[in-house]
Amino acid sequence: MTGASGFVGRHAVNVLAAAGHEVHAVSRTAHSTRGVCWHTCDLLDGPEVVAAVRPELLMHLAWYVEPADYLGSPENLAWVAASLGLLRAFVEAGGRRAVFSGTCAEYDWTPGGVLAEDAPIAPATVYGAAKDAVHRAGAAYARESGIELAWARLFFLFGPGEPPGRLVPAVAHGLLQGRAVETGSGAAVRDYLYVEDVARALAALLDSATAGAVNIGAGKGVVLRDLIELISSEVGRDDLLRIGARPDRPGEPSVLVADVSRLREEVGFTGSIGLEEGVARMIDEIRGQSSCARAANGR
Amino acid sequence: MTGASGFVGRHAVNVLAAAGHEVHAVSRTAHSTRGVCWHTCDLLDGPEVVAAVRPELLMHLAWYVEPADYLGSPENLAWVAASLGLLRAFVEAGGRRAVFSGTCAEYDWTPGGVLAEDAPIAPATVYGAAKDAVHRAGAAYARESGIELAWARLFFLFGPGEPPGRLVPAVAHGLLQGRAVETGSGAAVRDYLYVEDVARALAALLDSATAGAVNIGAGKGVVLRDLIELISSEVGRDDLLRIGARPDRPGEPSVLVADVSRLREEVGFTGSIGLEEGVARMIDEIRGQSSCARAANGR
Repeated sequence: MTGASGFVGRHAVNVLAAAGHEVHAVSRTAHSTRGVCWHTCDLLDGPEVVAAVRPELLMHLAWYVEPADYLGSPENLAWVAASLGLLRAFVEAGGRRAVFSGTCAEYDWTPGGVLAEDAPIAPATVYGAAKDAVHRAGAAYARESGIELAWARLFFLFGPGEPPGRLVPAVAHGLLQGRAVETGSGAAVRDYLYVEDVARALAALLDSATAGAVNIGAGKGVVLRDLIELISSEVGRDDLLRIGARPDRPGEPSVLVADVSRLREEVGFTGSIGLEEGVARMIDEIRGQSSCARAANGR
Repeated sequence: MTGASGFVGRHAVNVLAAAGHEVHAVSRTAHSTRGVCWHTCDLLDGPEVVAAVRPELLMHLAWYVEPADYLGSPENLAWVAASLGLLRAFVEAGGRRAVFSGTCAEYDWTPGGVLAEDAPIAPATVYGAAKDAVHRAGAAYARESGIELAWARLFFLFGPGEPPGRLVPAVAHGLLQGRAVETGSGAAVRDYLYVEDVARALAALLDSATAGAVNIGAGKGVVLRDLIELISSEVGRDDLLRIGARPDRPGEPSVLVADVSRLREEVGFTGSIGLEEGVARMIDEIRGQSSCARAANGR
């Protein structure tokens, strides 16, 4: 597993280890987890770790995810290269089946709505186009090589450990720190799945025989305003919320929801953590981390 | 220019130098041409040459073209990586406009017919999918970076120096060597443009302001049987031709012809070398090379 210490990866490592897999986790930074073999390396330097481990299965989650610029950064091109190099090394080391993380940003968002895997592809960002490029070249190579490649199109996810700067962590951290939080109208509808469910969905996909694109989502939409209010209510600081204080970004579609028929029927996965429970867990975790940090700082 | 010593590149170098460009030609093997600055390097090792030259314009023709396996080889993935790395280095060195060579193998061939640039994309090979992946990720990055990227979809081309193993060189070399040549029915219709016209079309595209996909072809089809007979008649060995002695490859479309409206109207290019003249030139060149080789061997 690549990106094993990332937002989704840290959970997926545990799910796969608990399911009895011999997990080899790849990360740029050193980690240690009971029952998991960690490998410290940067995939941009090459996929040598794959030749050393010779895995039967590969879950590739690593990518450039700097919130400030990941949508337009040229680093996306480097990750196209690294991802295809990884897939080739996996095939050449005798690999059998891979799950790569794609994104709902590959789809054409201009109509919006409920998107099945055969919805039109027309990414509006370098990030979406780069993921789509890996999918297209990777799928052709997988077909030619006789391995299975499943392409997981992740919709929106939330939970503790999400890179700051995005909507949910911005609201949660702001309110927990007692600051007023300004948001847009919150009128848009999005498909949000709790990060642990995303990790379980990816593990289920890896253990299935489903190939090709598979949406990963809850399969139902939440009005952003409702999600924001769930967070403020869990924190107990509705008073700090300023919904509608900021303008909405122009051109955003009103509805983006995953059609999860393939995930549910072919892979056999359904999420078990609802929005309310997910928000409660996330706030608990962030509170626990802050008190740890305070304790560590001697406060 | 990358791939500058290749089948098309060797002609494009001369066209651009004659048009007054300061040409920096990149090739893995050492070359020397009056008025052209050659750089010997392998782009798979990195695009450092771009940072050194800091070109305003880039024509990228290099790719893996081993006739035996280029359609399915994993080397196509390495060239996705190298091509995107090259584009990034070009942008970061202050480049303004690039022409990359794509292929008609990006299109869905199952219907066949006359294909415009907006025809459905559904490559059947790793080669076609890899080129398409570079186009998609590269176009998104070019848009984000504010540079112009034109994507030249080459149809069929012929001329001296074509890698052996393909139809035209197989027929030409076989007949010139006095061997019987067996082919399929030759019933399919393809769009063939003489290699020097292809080079001129690419140079015209580089000097134009047209961005996005542009078909490079003659804009009209030739029945393969007619092309084969043109060659045998030029060689003067109709007696050695066995058309229909081999089975046709299954699943090949009956007609593949480029709609060249964009090339003609936006770029302003029309080919000047017809099939008969192209075949005559090709046979002359191959004969000249063989007599040079005989002279060099002392025969």
